Amino acid sequence: MKTETAEPASARVRVKRLPARAKYDRATVEAILDEGLICHLGFVAEAQPYVIPTIYARDGDKLLIHGSAAGRTLREVSGQIPVCVTVTILDGLVLARSAYHHSMNYRSVVILGSATEIVERKAKLAAMRGLVEHVIAGRWDDVRHPNEQELRATMVLSLPIEEVSAKVRVGPPVDDEEDYSRETWAGVVPLSLDAHAATADPRLRAGTPLPTYARYYRRALMAVGK
Amino acid sequence: MKTETAEPASARVRVKRLPARAKYDRATVEAILDEGLICHLGFVAEAQPYVIPTIYARDGDKLLIHGSAAGRTLREVSGQIPVCVTVTILDGLVLARSAYHHSMNYRSVVILGSATEIVERKAKLAAMRGLVEHVIAGRWDDVRHPNEQELRATMVLSLPIEEVSAKVRVGPPVDDEEDYSRETWAGVVPLSLDAHAATADPRLRAGTPLPTYARYYRRALMAVGK
Repeated sequence: MKTETAEPASARVRVKRLPARAKYDRATVEAILDEGLICHLGFVAEAQPYVIPTIYARDGDKLLIHGSAAGRTLREVSGQIPVCVTVTILDGLVLARSAYHHSMNYRSVVILGSATEIVERKAKLAAMRGLVEHVIAGRWDDVRHPNEQELRATMVLSLPIEEVSAKVRVGPPVDDEEDYSRETWAGVVPLSLDAHAATADPRLRAGTPLPTYARYYRRALMAVGK
Repeated sequence: MKTETAEPASARVRVKRLPARAKYDRATVEAILDEGLICHLGFVAEAQPYVIPTIYARDGDKLLIHGSAAGRTLREVSGQIPVCVTVTILDGLVLARSAYHHSMNYRSVVILGSATEIVERKAKLAAMRGLVEHVIAGRWDDVRHPNEQELRATMVLSLPIEEVSAKVRVGPPVDDEEDYSRETWAGVVPLSLDAHAATADPRLRAGTPLPTYARYYRRALMAVGK
C-alpha cells in the first residue's frame, strides 16, 4: 500500500468473496487499525498454522506487533517471518429474513507479509511506547518505563502495511426479493466493545486520582487521536 | 480433549508463556467457545498463513466453522485442512504502574487440528442451524431455512475439539514490589462486547414485533443457554 491507490497491492489480498465489501484505500485501512484493540497474528511452524491474539500499534506505514505471547514459537522461525495479521471490529448482527442472508456488520483489515524482530534498543523502546499508547493513549507518561531486563524480555515485530486489504459491511440486511413479504423481524443489533467503570487495584495508594483516559475510555477516540 | 483431564492434549497446545494462565479442562474451554461470537481461522496456502474472521458454533466435541469467507482459498487445500481456530473474549485493560506489566484480562481458546468439509446434506443443514443459533439463540425457527442453492453456496468445516488449550487472565495488575509505592493510578478498565437498541430494516413490514432475543441480546446468555 505504497500509494493512495484503491487497487489491491497483490492478488493474495484481493478480496474474492463479496468484493463489493473490499476497501483498499489507506484512510480506511488506517482508521480500522487505529480503532482496533487487538490483532490475531498468524504464523506457521512445522506446517501447522498458529493464531495468537496480541497487541499491536500502527507506526505510520508499519505495524508493530507484541510477539511475546508467541515468543518461543516465533523465535524458532528465523529471520523474516511470513505472517498474517488480522484486525476485526464487530459493529452488529445483521438479522435477515432468511438464514442464508444473516451476516455481521464489521470492519476488518488483513495484512500479509514478512515480519522482522525489532532488536535495536531505541527502536524497541519507541515500539513499546507505541503499543501502550495504542491501547490507551496518554498512559505512557504516567508509568515506569521498561528497564533493560524488561526490554530484553519483550519481543516486538515490525510488519510493513503494504500487502493489505480491508473489508467493511454496513447497513441493513439484504434479503431475496420474495422474502421481504415474510412476517419476520429483520434489522441490525448494534454491537460495540464498551468500557465500564474502572476498578482500582486493591493496593492503590489512597487518594490517587483516576486519570481521564481511564474514566472516559472509548476505542473510537484512539482512531480520532491519530 | 477426550477426557476431563486438566493436562494439555499435546505439546503443541501446551501454554509456554505464563503457564499459570493456562486451563485445559473441558468446562472452561466450552464456556469460552459458547460465549465467544466469532473466531479467527488460520490456515496455510503456499507457505503463507491466512487468518480470517468467521462464525463458528460448538456441537458437543466438534467445532463447526463457517468457511465461506475463505472459500476459494480453502478449497484449494484438499481433504484434511490443518487449521488453528482462536476465540478471544476481551474482559478488560489491566493498567499497571510499570509499562511492562500492562496486560489485558481475557479468555481465549486455541484449537489445532485438521478440519474437514461437511458435505452431507442433512449434516450441513444441521450445522447451518448451529451457526445461526450460536450467534443468536432462538433465531432459526423464525427465518426461512436454506434452499438447495444456498446449501451448495455455503461451506462449513468440522474440527474436533481435542488438541485445545485455554488461557484466562483475571484480576488486578501485578506490579514489581518496589513499584507499589508509585503515585500512579493502577487498576482495570472492564471491557465487554455490548449490544445496543436494535434498528429495524427500513423495509420491515409495519407492526412486526422485535423478538425478545434481539431486544435483550447478551453473549453471556449464549453460554448459559447451552
